[in-house]
Amino acid sequence: MHRTHTCGELTAIYIGQEVTLSGWVANRRDHGGIIFIDLRDRYGITQMVFDPQDNESAWKIADTFRSEYVVKLTGKVRHRPEGQTNKNLITGEIEIITLHAEILAESKTPPFEISDHTTANEEIRFKHRYLDLRRAKVLENVKFRAIMNHFTRNWFTDKGFTEVQTPIFTVSSPEGARDFLIPSRLHNGKFYALPQAPQQYKQLLMVGGIDKYFQIAPCFRDEDPRADRHSCEFYQIDCEMSFVEQEDIFEVAESFVKDLIAGISPEKHIRENKVYRFTHKEAKNLYGSDKPDIRFDLHFEDFTSDFRNSGFSVFQGAVAAGGVVKAMKLENVAMSRSEIDAITGVAQDNGAKGLAYIIYEAEGPRSPILKFFSEAEMKALEEKLAPKAGDMIFFGAGEYALVTKVLGAVRLALRDKYNLADQNELAFAWITDFPIFERKDDGTIDFEHNPFSMPHGGAAAFDNPEPTEIYGMQYDLACNGYEILSGSIRNHDLKALVKAFKMVGKGEEEVKEKFGAMYNAFQYGVPPHGGFAFGFDRLLMILKNEDNIREVYAFPKSGKAEDVMMNAPNYIDDAQLKELGIEVRGE
Amino acid sequence: MHRTHTCGELTAIYIGQEVTLSGWVANRRDHGGIIFIDLRDRYGITQMVFDPQDNESAWKIADTFRSEYVVKLTGKVRHRPEGQTNKNLITGEIEIITLHAEILAESKTPPFEISDHTTANEEIRFKHRYLDLRRAKVLENVKFRAIMNHFTRNWFTDKGFTEVQTPIFTVSSPEGARDFLIPSRLHNGKFYALPQAPQQYKQLLMVGGIDKYFQIAPCFRDEDPRADRHSCEFYQIDCEMSFVEQEDIFEVAESFVKDLIAGISPEKHIRENKVYRFTHKEAKNLYGSDKPDIRFDLHFEDFTSDFRNSGFSVFQGAVAAGGVVKAMKLENVAMSRSEIDAITGVAQDNGAKGLAYIIYEAEGPRSPILKFFSEAEMKALEEKLAPKAGDMIFFGAGEYALVTKVLGAVRLALRDKYNLADQNELAFAWITDFPIFERKDDGTIDFEHNPFSMPHGGAAAFDNPEPTEIYGMQYDLACNGYEILSGSIRNHDLKALVKAFKMVGKGEEEVKEKFGAMYNAFQYGVPPHGGFAFGFDRLLMILKNEDNIREVYAFPKSGKAEDVMMNAPNYIDDAQLKELGIEVRGE
Repeated sequence: MHRTHTCGELTAIYIGQEVTLSGWVANRRDHGGIIFIDLRDRYGITQMVFDPQDNESAWKIADTFRSEYVVKLTGKVRHRPEGQTNKNLITGEIEIITLHAEILAESKTPPFEISDHTTANEEIRFKHRYLDLRRAKVLENVKFRAIMNHFTRNWFTDKGFTEVQTPIFTVSSPEGARDFLIPSRLHNGKFYALPQAPQQYKQLLMVGGIDKYFQIAPCFRDEDPRADRHSCEFYQIDCEMSFVEQEDIFEVAESFVKDLIAGISPEKHIRENKVYRFTHKEAKNLYGSDKPDIRFDLHFEDFTSDFRNSGFSVFQGAVAAGGVVKAMKLENVAMSRSEIDAITGVAQDNGAKGLAYIIYEAEGPRSPILKFFSEAEMKALEEKLAPKAGDMIFFGAGEYALVTKVLGAVRLALRDKYNLADQNELAFAWITDFPIFERKDDGTIDFEHNPFSMPHGGAAAFDNPEPTEIYGMQYDLACNGYEILSGSIRNHDLKALVKAFKMVGKGEEEVKEKFGAMYNAFQYGVPPHGGFAFGFDRLLMILKNEDNIREVYAFPKSGKAEDVMMNAPNYIDDAQLKELGIEVRGE
Repeated sequence: MHRTHTCGELTAIYIGQEVTLSGWVANRRDHGGIIFIDLRDRYGITQMVFDPQDNESAWKIADTFRSEYVVKLTGKVRHRPEGQTNKNLITGEIEIITLHAEILAESKTPPFEISDHTTANEEIRFKHRYLDLRRAKVLENVKFRAIMNHFTRNWFTDKGFTEVQTPIFTVSSPEGARDFLIPSRLHNGKFYALPQAPQQYKQLLMVGGIDKYFQIAPCFRDEDPRADRHSCEFYQIDCEMSFVEQEDIFEVAESFVKDLIAGISPEKHIRENKVYRFTHKEAKNLYGSDKPDIRFDLHFEDFTSDFRNSGFSVFQGAVAAGGVVKAMKLENVAMSRSEIDAITGVAQDNGAKGLAYIIYEAEGPRSPILKFFSEAEMKALEEKLAPKAGDMIFFGAGEYALVTKVLGAVRLALRDKYNLADQNELAFAWITDFPIFERKDDGTIDFEHNPFSMPHGGAAAFDNPEPTEIYGMQYDLACNGYEILSGSIRNHDLKALVKAFKMVGKGEEEVKEKFGAMYNAFQYGVPPHGGFAFGFDRLLMILKNEDNIREVYAFPKSGKAEDVMMNAPNYIDDAQLKELGIEVRGE
């Protein structure tokens, strides 16, 4: 037997008992010939004492211990001496006077300090992830992930959803991001694809009558990694329901996040304990984002008509060219010249020429552009933004898409600079009525999101001569500036679906060929249905205040989509490739 | 709103209420101008009545209903007429007199009958799996799978195991079955591999101090499909523990299966409510299998020494050549000539020249070979097998491997022919002490299973000059003739691990290169550890009495590793392959 107890459970009630513990040597101190070891396992830390007076052979063995050795120690539990108890530890009242010691495994000196204060960079930590996992912060994320998995599955199961594991080996889907492919050995020349999401399968489950489906589904997209997108693989809480309308779906998703946060992140609170709602257009208008962070105000007001005939040629010109003028008010901040330059840099990085502003001081407003403004224009600012001494107003003028993008970026930069958002607040907002189609630069029409959404107004909406004005029963849930959920009521009318594809230049034959299973299935009694998918990892990242999604995986891929510990991806023997009927392309 | 209730919940207490139901038209009957519809959803069936006297427009719409139409019906709940109630249905006491009818989606005539009595073959069922899922039996398997997933995860979580999702994108592992590969776009010429099992990751989690890990892990092996092996992907209940010995692991696995069966398959019982134990050698000796079905006896007795000098030259010759003579007794069966021929055919299919037997009749034993047997030989048979009138004895003679294989196959054929095994009985047996190495036909030594097992006797065991006599702390759990679990205490001693690899002709450099992460990790304090993996799908297949593992997946692959519904695998655009840096090999 390797242990009678773990390193995280012995308290004063065990005093006098003989126990055996196994774990890692986390810390060693010598005091007057007595050796103290902090013995660590995932449950905690226990102080082991080696006194040559008590047992010389155990003391001699302990004298050879180094950091991260795995050792097995037997001894008697006793109260720590007066003044040496540690209230922060469960085991802080006791120590073990060790009578028998054994080294189970030695350790070389670790390449970085096993502590939350390590200065090691990501690459060295990920290369030795098995050591990184011994750090409390990393372990905490691994444990929290398990708790969130557990909570999620039990919640959906309790609500009558059936978990279905959909296939990981499927077919390349012509829409969306890039697929990962797997060459087939039994069918040389053909390839499986990994699912970007179980979208088609979950809709087919609805056709199959499963009624309420969920899965914490592994998803695979060959996209370039970024801070909130793990490369290769990620997980989503995938859900689909039959015989529902949009409000039914909102109700499920809202109760889930509320219960989840109360259940596993009680230190967090939901802003006003509600979920806000904006149409896609409102969100863009107010915050310049389809995933606004609404933990703080700093919304945009529109001044397009106010500056139509402005003496300030930049604004007047923008409006004359069909653009907009927007402004937002930052309260109670005195920015220095260099701070203004820095924030102007953010605007410029996002495509603006500059960043117009007014500073409201006790003596009145101050700005290089003030001299161009009429009294009516100043009054419009007063009315819509009510600036007070100490506030600032920032302007954007030009094309709608550019202005909202620039001010949106400035808004987030101000948030980060002035800590406008509460770390422990979660502000949820439904973003609804996404446009189904977008007009691309070359003038052609394409799907903005996935092609399977029902438009507002039903199938008849597709008769609208202006496709970009057709809005879908399609929604995202935004939280603190992240998109954490996406979904829609599906277009279950095959004729309407074919019509939608026709609008992006795809004929019925192409739909039949590319979405054959859905095309067939929808002819055999398809119920109205809809659903959503939460980004599991992204939600977890928010709940654990992590800035990088890589921190929420036990074994993350690097920023270059590599597993530096396992050395994946790697070269493959030609014989293996030959069996798969493929070869690596030459230069 | 599409429904106020489901089709499986209305009982007499709802009588008089107005309700709205949505579902599929499962059945339609016309009686004297009144239309009766069975409305089906996943929760049940409700009888809907359309009487032109009550509501003519609803009746007219119902008259257009065909099988599998999706319809929305509003009406009043009433008691069924005297004599027409159905005790087998939850809703069997009531019916709905329909006042409003709406078709939500039409259906073409399904390509096969949506019933448990369908005669459709697997291909047509799988091609239209969305229709197949509407059959009660298929739905039941999907629901049961969800229940088993749920039970399993909660059980391991309650027992203190931490669920960890290990990477699906990893590196090709040089041992075991064939890997599936994924070409990398960002690193052209390199490939990811899908994990055959999370073996290395779970061991690295132990090095990382996770202590108790589990996961219902998707696993991927490029093997040819068979009845108990799903192609492409399957799931295992994967588990690993630190600071444990073999008995600790047995205890966990045994409690799990006992609790699982009591919890989700109460109609099944465990033979003697215990788990039997055999060494690998015992199992081979007794049943000719390393996954014996022990729901019935029919074990082998050894007669090698008894027939050493036999007058029956076949037996004598077998022993002289270093082989064995074994026999088993089938009780209480009178086999006809043609039945004996059939069972002899099984022996021949497995490599035997014939199948010697004795029939014990009321008048005494009868057999073509009896005339060669001495009195002592007959006595040996009496002593070890105690045959009675009505019994039969079957013999195998020759090389050990052949005899055990042949008699093992005959044993299972007799089980199937005479229903020797109880369908509702589960007979579990640990098979222990697997040989670590095997001698291949060319005389070289290779690993019999995975290379990471600790041998009995510890690292010193590798000093044995005869590698095939080194036995591992390696175990399978057999159930009803299937291997449902495999595992081992791991070899956590890097020096011993290197030694093991050396025995199969692989130097330390090769270990370092091929198992770099483990080679590195084991130098930084590795705890003693071990674990197991249950074949989730195979266990489910046994619990649901399915002969083919494909039946336990929502969307199965065919026997040719294809998803015939999605048409996977499929050809890929050359542009897509180009981006991945690969091409399909020419002829």
